[in-house]
Amino acid sequence: MSDILNPADAEFAQTLRAALPEGTLDGASASYLEEPRGRYAGQAGVLARPRNAQEVSTLVRMAADARVGIVPYGGGTGLVGGQVAPDGPAPLIVSLERMAAIRDVYPDENVLIAEAGVILANVQAAAEGVDRLFPLSLAAEGTARIGGNLATNAGGTGVLRYGNARDLCLGLEAVLPDGQIWKGLTRLRKNNTGYDLRHLLIGAEGTLGIITAAALKLFARPAQTGTALLVVQSPDAALKLLSLARGLFGEMISAFELIHRQGFDFLTETMPDVRQPFETPPEWCVLIELGLAADMDPSSALETLFASGAEAGLVSDGLIAGSGAQADAFWAIRESIPEANRRIGSVSSHDISVPLGAIPEFIVQAGERLARMGDFRINCFGHVGDGNLHYNVFPQVGRSRADHENQRDAIKACVHDLTDELGGSVSAEHGVGRLKVGDLERYSDPAKMSAMRAIKAGLDPLGIMNPGAVLRG
Amino acid sequence: MSDILNPADAEFAQTLRAALPEGTLDGASASYLEEPRGRYAGQAGVLARPRNAQEVSTLVRMAADARVGIVPYGGGTGLVGGQVAPDGPAPLIVSLERMAAIRDVYPDENVLIAEAGVILANVQAAAEGVDRLFPLSLAAEGTARIGGNLATNAGGTGVLRYGNARDLCLGLEAVLPDGQIWKGLTRLRKNNTGYDLRHLLIGAEGTLGIITAAALKLFARPAQTGTALLVVQSPDAALKLLSLARGLFGEMISAFELIHRQGFDFLTETMPDVRQPFETPPEWCVLIELGLAADMDPSSALETLFASGAEAGLVSDGLIAGSGAQADAFWAIRESIPEANRRIGSVSSHDISVPLGAIPEFIVQAGERLARMGDFRINCFGHVGDGNLHYNVFPQVGRSRADHENQRDAIKACVHDLTDELGGSVSAEHGVGRLKVGDLERYSDPAKMSAMRAIKAGLDPLGIMNPGAVLRG
Repeated sequence: MSDILNPADAEFAQTLRAALPEGTLDGASASYLEEPRGRYAGQAGVLARPRNAQEVSTLVRMAADARVGIVPYGGGTGLVGGQVAPDGPAPLIVSLERMAAIRDVYPDENVLIAEAGVILANVQAAAEGVDRLFPLSLAAEGTARIGGNLATNAGGTGVLRYGNARDLCLGLEAVLPDGQIWKGLTRLRKNNTGYDLRHLLIGAEGTLGIITAAALKLFARPAQTGTALLVVQSPDAALKLLSLARGLFGEMISAFELIHRQGFDFLTETMPDVRQPFETPPEWCVLIELGLAADMDPSSALETLFASGAEAGLVSDGLIAGSGAQADAFWAIRESIPEANRRIGSVSSHDISVPLGAIPEFIVQAGERLARMGDFRINCFGHVGDGNLHYNVFPQVGRSRADHENQRDAIKACVHDLTDELGGSVSAEHGVGRLKVGDLERYSDPAKMSAMRAIKAGLDPLGIMNPGAVLRG
Repeated sequence: MSDILNPADAEFAQTLRAALPEGTLDGASASYLEEPRGRYAGQAGVLARPRNAQEVSTLVRMAADARVGIVPYGGGTGLVGGQVAPDGPAPLIVSLERMAAIRDVYPDENVLIAEAGVILANVQAAAEGVDRLFPLSLAAEGTARIGGNLATNAGGTGVLRYGNARDLCLGLEAVLPDGQIWKGLTRLRKNNTGYDLRHLLIGAEGTLGIITAAALKLFARPAQTGTALLVVQSPDAALKLLSLARGLFGEMISAFELIHRQGFDFLTETMPDVRQPFETPPEWCVLIELGLAADMDPSSALETLFASGAEAGLVSDGLIAGSGAQADAFWAIRESIPEANRRIGSVSSHDISVPLGAIPEFIVQAGERLARMGDFRINCFGHVGDGNLHYNVFPQVGRSRADHENQRDAIKACVHDLTDELGGSVSAEHGVGRLKVGDLERYSDPAKMSAMRAIKAGLDPLGIMNPGAVLRG
């Protein structure tokens, strides 16, 4: 579709300028044209920073009239290039950064209304300000904006207990590709009146409209929190331990993250200031957090879990945080691993999910297949309770990612083919963006692909919304 | 669109018969042409009872070729006429009743794969068989089939803790309007690869495709259950009590149902065998169920809640179930109220939701406005923690619903207008079907309506899928 689009040129900018308040438009500075992994460089085009949904609507209508592509822009932290357009006619970049108001908070309803440009950490803080929890939590939370989190259906460490971004959203306000404002900012828990546009826009990565505000679910803050690092024999033992923990604590397991020895080693190598909890890093361990009711004791709950796990032969060692500071130190390890990975420099990174029961097989098979391709270090970690592993492949000590440049595609195909064979997903939480358009075509069910194209054509017949993302233009 | 459809006549039946195994087709007996509230009588057309998704696909392709409308049929328990076509050309009725296999159960993954025709109670039983919980629970569970539950995004008493039907589904297999089988039966907890077709088909009431199987989420069964009936001063006090309970027990509140004195009175009048727990029925009470972890005592938890509620002036009296039998007796009251309502015979019934904070105002205002229209008995009850009230209007003693026949439309408009004024939904859990097509047009956001029409036109350009449901043909 994008071959019929026009560039956002000076003339188009002039037309927009005449229709919008002064200061809405600008040239796009470098920060809007980069993405964290440095794979894509965006084209400058025109940058608009609207202040409200009406201005977004005006921008979309005028872009539709002029057949100009639009790239919606949140915090710019996406890892699959959904926020930059490296080719095709230069786009209109619509940054939501000025729509950064928390419009309302309803503590008694456990609802918060945030504009799309609110930084995720500020949503969390606003919830905490009324003694509530907004549980979406991820490494980029200090920069990512909630509109982008919703557009990409962000995941993170809270998914096990509270769900993905889509599960935390009650309603949306959004500008559709024809410029109409959908006023769907409901605070309702139940609403069965027609197709669920909310869930269609969430995860569509800006290709079906621009989210301008959201009604978000809040939760009671767990009265007690307990954190532990438990050494497990294997990923399989980790999953059995999770089953055991569920039997004991039901939905009160707030996090269950798998960590591999390689992660500890990378920290030693690149971030020696991060305090290491074990004298000798274990081959596998899990970081577990329980969020408990008022009359439960976190330490004794974790001791019960440890004892049951040890008795079942799943757990061989462990550390239970004796203070908030110690819990923070445990979390600092988990949260520093992505940065350590960046410093080492991966040959290829994968955000995959498989059915829970297939995790052990995935890890064994992927290791064997990659060993046949070369000598790599593998850091496999992440949200094992969700079946979501970050499976990242690194060069051996003394070599660099550049040495393996020509192997990257083959490694990616190897990991993704295996994922697909096991009934998994080649993008568990990062989305498709521009990076995985080919993967989507390769691995998706054909009926799903044709339905997606029909929906895109129905809602965005001109193909102006984030052209080239998710679906090929 | 439906004006271009052809009837499912003898010739069409003959063509189908030639393409499908013997016994797949039949004439539609009366049971397929009725619905529980007796508002619509379906047309006979042709009945098909396929055994697998491939046969469903064949039926849909042939219906598309012949431009014949299809009405998907589950358990027939829907309350808004989504399952019968009273007008337009006679349809092909596709009943999923023969697709009643539980294909797989993965207790360690908390996943169960059920075909669309499995009766909801059988899904629950299969989960219980592996010591798990499938929490979708509603009055019609002995008859309703899971495919219909998903197509209508069914609600019920478990929503507060576990969500609506859509929240309990990981993946779908479905036949799309062009006959393609979407093989989306994933067991993945996280999968960000493109538009979420699952959430689009769930709640679309068969207008975008036919669900043939689903991967469903299971949960750990709460180790302990505690049940109480607590007398509250008002609906507002009920909501404050819920807030208080959330502070104490977080997500461990499994049910929180509001009951009005009128419900007890209707039971006395029509179902005297149902044991009444209070000597004098209270004006308002809540049925609360806690599902607790292994080391918590349900009675003391409920006593704590009672004491805190009493101290806050919210609770004046209460009964804590001392045994499973007593808990069942409390639930029998809640579950018998719909039947008692049926025996009294409502003038008009409403399945509305409003933001939680607007519930007290809704109840006051609705009572006042209806009082100006006549002398009615009102039974207002339901899932108050979800903001979902069943607000049903009955004639006074000695009068019948027939006496108020000419007022029904005005009453409905009165209740629905108020719901809309308060930011609510005129169909919280029952869906749109054919009954509320006009309400959807009247109360929905125009941008949402045009997006829905574009999606329908994109996926079902011939308009063959459940014509006349949700969107006018």
